[in-house]
Amino acid sequence: MIVVMKIGSPEAEIKRINDELTNWGLTPEKIVGKHKVVIGLVGETASLDPLQIQEVSPWIEQVLRVEKPYKRASRQFRHGEASEVKVNTPAGTVVFGEHHPLVVIAGPCSVENEEMIIETAQRVKASGAKFLRGGAYKPRTSPYSFQGHGESALELLAKAREATGLGIITEVMDAADLEIIAEFADIIQVGARNMQNFSLLKKVGAQGKPVFLKRGMAATIEDWLMAAEYILAAGNSNVILCERGIRTFDRQYTRNTLDLSAIPVLRDLTHLPIAIDPSHGTGWSNYVPSMSMAAIAAGCDSLMIEVHPNPKKALSDGPQSLTPQGFEQLMQELAVIGKAVGRWEKPTAVV
Amino acid sequence: MIVVMKIGSPEAEIKRINDELTNWGLTPEKIVGKHKVVIGLVGETASLDPLQIQEVSPWIEQVLRVEKPYKRASRQFRHGEASEVKVNTPAGTVVFGEHHPLVVIAGPCSVENEEMIIETAQRVKASGAKFLRGGAYKPRTSPYSFQGHGESALELLAKAREATGLGIITEVMDAADLEIIAEFADIIQVGARNMQNFSLLKKVGAQGKPVFLKRGMAATIEDWLMAAEYILAAGNSNVILCERGIRTFDRQYTRNTLDLSAIPVLRDLTHLPIAIDPSHGTGWSNYVPSMSMAAIAAGCDSLMIEVHPNPKKALSDGPQSLTPQGFEQLMQELAVIGKAVGRWEKPTAVV
Amino acid sequence: MIVVMKIGSPEAEIKRINDELTNWGLTPEKIVGKHKVVIGLVGETASLDPLQIQEVSPWIEQVLRVEKPYKRASRQFRHGEASEVKVNTPAGTVVFGEHHPLVVIAGPCSVENEEMIIETAQRVKASGAKFLRGGAYKPRTSPYSFQGHGESALELLAKAREATGLGIITEVMDAADLEIIAEFADIIQVGARNMQNFSLLKKVGAQGKPVFLKRGMAATIEDWLMAAEYILAAGNSNVILCERGIRTFDRQYTRNTLDLSAIPVLRDLTHLPIAIDPSHGTGWSNYVPSMSMAAIAAGCDSLMIEVHPNPKKALSDGPQSLTPQGFEQLMQELAVIGKAVGRWEKPTAVV
Amino acid sequence: MIVVMKIGSPEAEIKRINDELTNWGLTPEKIVGKHKVVIGLVGETASLDPLQIQEVSPWIEQVLRVEKPYKRASRQFRHGEASEVKVNTPAGTVVFGEHHPLVVIAGPCSVENEEMIIETAQRVKASGAKFLRGGAYKPRTSPYSFQGHGESALELLAKAREATGLGIITEVMDAADLEIIAEFADIIQVGARNMQNFSLLKKVGAQGKPVFLKRGMAATIEDWLMAAEYILAAGNSNVILCERGIRTFDRQYTRNTLDLSAIPVLRDLTHLPIAIDPSHGTGWSNYVPSMSMAAIAAGCDSLMIEVHPNPKKALSDGPQSLTPQGFEQLMQELAVIGKAVGRWEKPTAVV
Repeated sequence: MIVVMKIGSPEAEIKRINDELTNWGLTPEKIVGKHKVVIGLVGETASLDPLQIQEVSPWIEQVLRVEKPYKRASRQFRHGEASEVKVNTPAGTVVFGEHHPLVVIAGPCSVENEEMIIETAQRVKASGAKFLRGGAYKPRTSPYSFQGHGESALELLAKAREATGLGIITEVMDAADLEIIAEFADIIQVGARNMQNFSLLKKVGAQGKPVFLKRGMAATIEDWLMAAEYILAAGNSNVILCERGIRTFDRQYTRNTLDLSAIPVLRDLTHLPIAIDPSHGTGWSNYVPSMSMAAIAAGCDSLMIEVHPNPKKALSDGPQSLTPQGFEQLMQELAVIGKAVGRWEKPTAVV
Repeated sequence: MIVVMKIGSPEAEIKRINDELTNWGLTPEKIVGKHKVVIGLVGETASLDPLQIQEVSPWIEQVLRVEKPYKRASRQFRHGEASEVKVNTPAGTVVFGEHHPLVVIAGPCSVENEEMIIETAQRVKASGAKFLRGGAYKPRTSPYSFQGHGESALELLAKAREATGLGIITEVMDAADLEIIAEFADIIQVGARNMQNFSLLKKVGAQGKPVFLKRGMAATIEDWLMAAEYILAAGNSNVILCERGIRTFDRQYTRNTLDLSAIPVLRDLTHLPIAIDPSHGTGWSNYVPSMSMAAIAAGCDSLMIEVHPNPKKALSDGPQSLTPQGFEQLMQELAVIGKAVGRWEKPTAVV
Repeated sequence: MIVVMKIGSPEAEIKRINDELTNWGLTPEKIVGKHKVVIGLVGETASLDPLQIQEVSPWIEQVLRVEKPYKRASRQFRHGEASEVKVNTPAGTVVFGEHHPLVVIAGPCSVENEEMIIETAQRVKASGAKFLRGGAYKPRTSPYSFQGHGESALELLAKAREATGLGIITEVMDAADLEIIAEFADIIQVGARNMQNFSLLKKVGAQGKPVFLKRGMAATIEDWLMAAEYILAAGNSNVILCERGIRTFDRQYTRNTLDLSAIPVLRDLTHLPIAIDPSHGTGWSNYVPSMSMAAIAAGCDSLMIEVHPNPKKALSDGPQSLTPQGFEQLMQELAVIGKAVGRWEKPTAVV
Repeated sequence: MIVVMKIGSPEAEIKRINDELTNWGLTPEKIVGKHKVVIGLVGETASLDPLQIQEVSPWIEQVLRVEKPYKRASRQFRHGEASEVKVNTPAGTVVFGEHHPLVVIAGPCSVENEEMIIETAQRVKASGAKFLRGGAYKPRTSPYSFQGHGESALELLAKAREATGLGIITEVMDAADLEIIAEFADIIQVGARNMQNFSLLKKVGAQGKPVFLKRGMAATIEDWLMAAEYILAAGNSNVILCERGIRTFDRQYTRNTLDLSAIPVLRDLTHLPIAIDPSHGTGWSNYVPSMSMAAIAAGCDSLMIEVHPNPKKALSDGPQSLTPQGFEQLMQELAVIGKAVGRWEKPTAVV
């Protein structure tokens, strides 16, 4: 349920309502929107009568039931307003959200060595990326494949961060690594294969860094929003949803089927920012430009693109990685669409 | 196999080679590209040695094997050059192809009555559509649902054509109706459920009107190109491929999963023009604008969009139909992207 | 809706009710069950009140609404009673149905020549098959693959029928061939790719031979029953449903995913007999025995199994064909399970 | 690679070869089969020449390369011989394997309270189950659903074990709980949603209790065997594979599509025992008997069936749970098939 407050409701009254509803055994959550304050309610609300809550204060404008099983993640929970995920990076705060410029995340599948990660970071930064992706702990289908350099890779990411000012995003696969990853990363990624690792979701929800939640390869939109709900319910409201291709019957020419319709569907259903990963989504770098163009035209808030200085020699996912040159060219093409749809960052007056 | 001729090859020599190869039991097909002439060869080529063919004439530049199972539909068969499908309409020739402006097809699922089809035609024409879609024979899941008005609907389409100058596209479900449909339609549609109705494919391949071939809901890209190959092999080279959503595990918020990655994949594999149907692809009119924007940004050559004057009262597929106003607004939004990517028709000097 | 008559209702009264309801604009269909007579009603029944019908005669026990979209195919339409499909063969009537022994259909994918089809027929007959399958018109993914020998293959099937007494089942792909196929075949197959070729469904529904309706590779159970409904609604009540594998994300080790749960699900939903095709369902002959065993244990009424005298040299589908010896051995293994579940034909006293 | 030793090879020689190959940087694993000893080799074998290994000892019969990406899990790794997973229970050792009677696991989705778990245990034991399943930690789509009673549920399982002699199988969701679960459980389950939680796989591989590895809902057979390989590679060779339904386009009448063809496919590819869970596989208790019958006929080694004393009041998965009576009846029906295929436990002389 949500309690929509009238414009101009006094802080003290909002606090009083909050306390009252807490006494009722509910968990109120204050959401400050552009115009109005909304109090989200989670708990045993099924038996509650909205009218009963309405009577708690004359400052309450409306009490509405959230019909979706994902409560906090639903667009209704914020009374229709998009949320913003603000991330601190050395170069300043970057905001992911519907009313902000597209945020581009780029980098290699895995952090391989210092030279390659620094070089990649510098190149993608120069082309306009705001975040560097790079795997320290890699979920690999085979136990015999390269599993990532772990902690030492985190240190290399820190160096790349320092050298370029880019924010860092990297994946957590094991709750035991969460603390150290949170030390180094600005955003923590939960990968497709762990989207329903509920223990991990609870733990990333209980820490403070923003979470980049990839869609599971057979997850319905609803499964995915329920996974986000685990994180939100654990106390972390900074969740970015990332579509990365679903598994379908046709895997001959693309590794997955990139479900771009997730963009308008999620926009309807949730207030959370939406990212697209065309690299995993298609599995082939030559399809990445076209799908990136489509994603921004469809309204996504962020793109995650794999870039490797030498894709042919990559330790993982080479075929889907752009070269730095390829990425630079793509960013120029994206700018054309991005400007056309009003989602491209304006150059600052003095640099 | 394809035989690439040197620039400036004399016509007589090309004819001679053609005759020679016919004598060998092959079926040569002359393809005149922008710069070069290519002779496509279909038949028992597996045992042929390219060098052997090379020796037939000093004007032969190269003999290449087409590795794909779809020969005539493959991009290789035209030596990498896109094909154009030119359609005559009362308002002039409209060209579908990679190097031409986006062609928009719009109209209702079914032709319901004269008033609605004429009104829709006028409205979509005013907004920039080049073709009117409208079902006369409808493939319906239930035998008890409205099955289309048949021949009388074809006559109403003819009236709409006359009134507006729009080209007409309508679906054939039964080979027995092919002749009469070909009389009225400028483009003949083969629907998703008949994509592997091989008897029908052979018959639409044996007549002269261009064919709009929708992807089957569980057809792989390769199945689809093989279906196109049936039409091409029967002698009709004017085929437009239309993605309309595939069937996946998630059908809660969209009716199908629109596979936009088909655009760059097909561009790689085939020379045929590519269309997208976001109305069937998503099943909901509110997702159509976003997916249309994505489709044009991804590089499609044509869009097919359902428009109905009163979607709530539509005899079929109401939820996925835009109103004429909605369509008009969408066309304005599409123009922005279309111009940005250089795929929007330039206004003619005098109108 | 169905009208359940009391036990012992006089024929004349049933006829009177029939006439009365016809006058109301409905299409009554008399179904004679083991104990009771039921009158099935199709038409504009949504607005009818069951009580109103109840008043037509004191011999009416109950009037029930059929909630499913497939009316005639639903189990309710026969008040829970299974239907029987009786097929005349030279060796006598064979019955497909829940309360009858398993009917085994065997034979090659395609009829290749007289020797092979006669030999196969004799061998499968000796092992216990009741029907010979064999394609005369073949739905092939590629236009360049062997398309079947057509009419001459039908004649060879007729010879095999005469030589062995086996019934014949063969596929129709084109309505234009329906008449000649119906002359030669005892059962007409509609293949997976034509399951939603509604024109063809109406035409096989309008002729008298029993129809073997394969499930489309992406057809839901409901789509499939609606396809059967097309045939039933056109007047042919002899429909056998055949599961032959659906298309899923995993196609590496099996060609399709055989959905054996369709057996209990269909048993619940429909009165029609249920067949399983483990050859297409798996695509590999070494998986056919295990899936055949499973199918009979799960309760299917019929099995369709590919048998070829020399699978390695088969013109189509060799990898999924058993040899005659393999089939013979399988039949012995199936007999063990068949007897255990009471679905194996008892040997007649004197043969 | 595998090194097949000649019959009668002396122990000392086998040890010597082992040491030698260890010196080469490989990880040899001795597998004692019925007739022969095989030494499995994992490591950098790609560049090794089998002949080179052959020369190490005259007692080596053959050196064979394992072509599959799953090495230890492949049937080849054991030179074609099935493995046995032996589990100690209070009532004696129970063996899962191709040449042993079917092992039935039964019990509720969640352990709800002492009475229900004890009662269920006694009832399923009386009907012939060897293991009690029961969730202490539950993977639930919603964070607001019942998440299991955790440690206290483990204690109740221990009581049920003591009361009945049944072995216990329960799911681990979080590596942090692994130690305590291993204390109470005889078999540790890794659920479908964690099938590619590689961190967890490594940890269950590093402890000694047998592991019941459910197939992920979009996992290919190969993904699944690679997940098993993670466990085997970490040192635990006691893995049982359990098919529990995959996610497909049709979810209207069944929750998942039970892929019974996994049985013969896995039998070909791996030596590991194969279990089927028809309860999750279909999601409806009325489809469980038919699919259980099919599974045993198809050759599975184990069945996992949900049983709840009062399915309508179950805290989770009620619709797919049999009652104890339903389970008893099913076991009688299964016995008929089980005996027919020689996979039913023979009654011991004196009980």
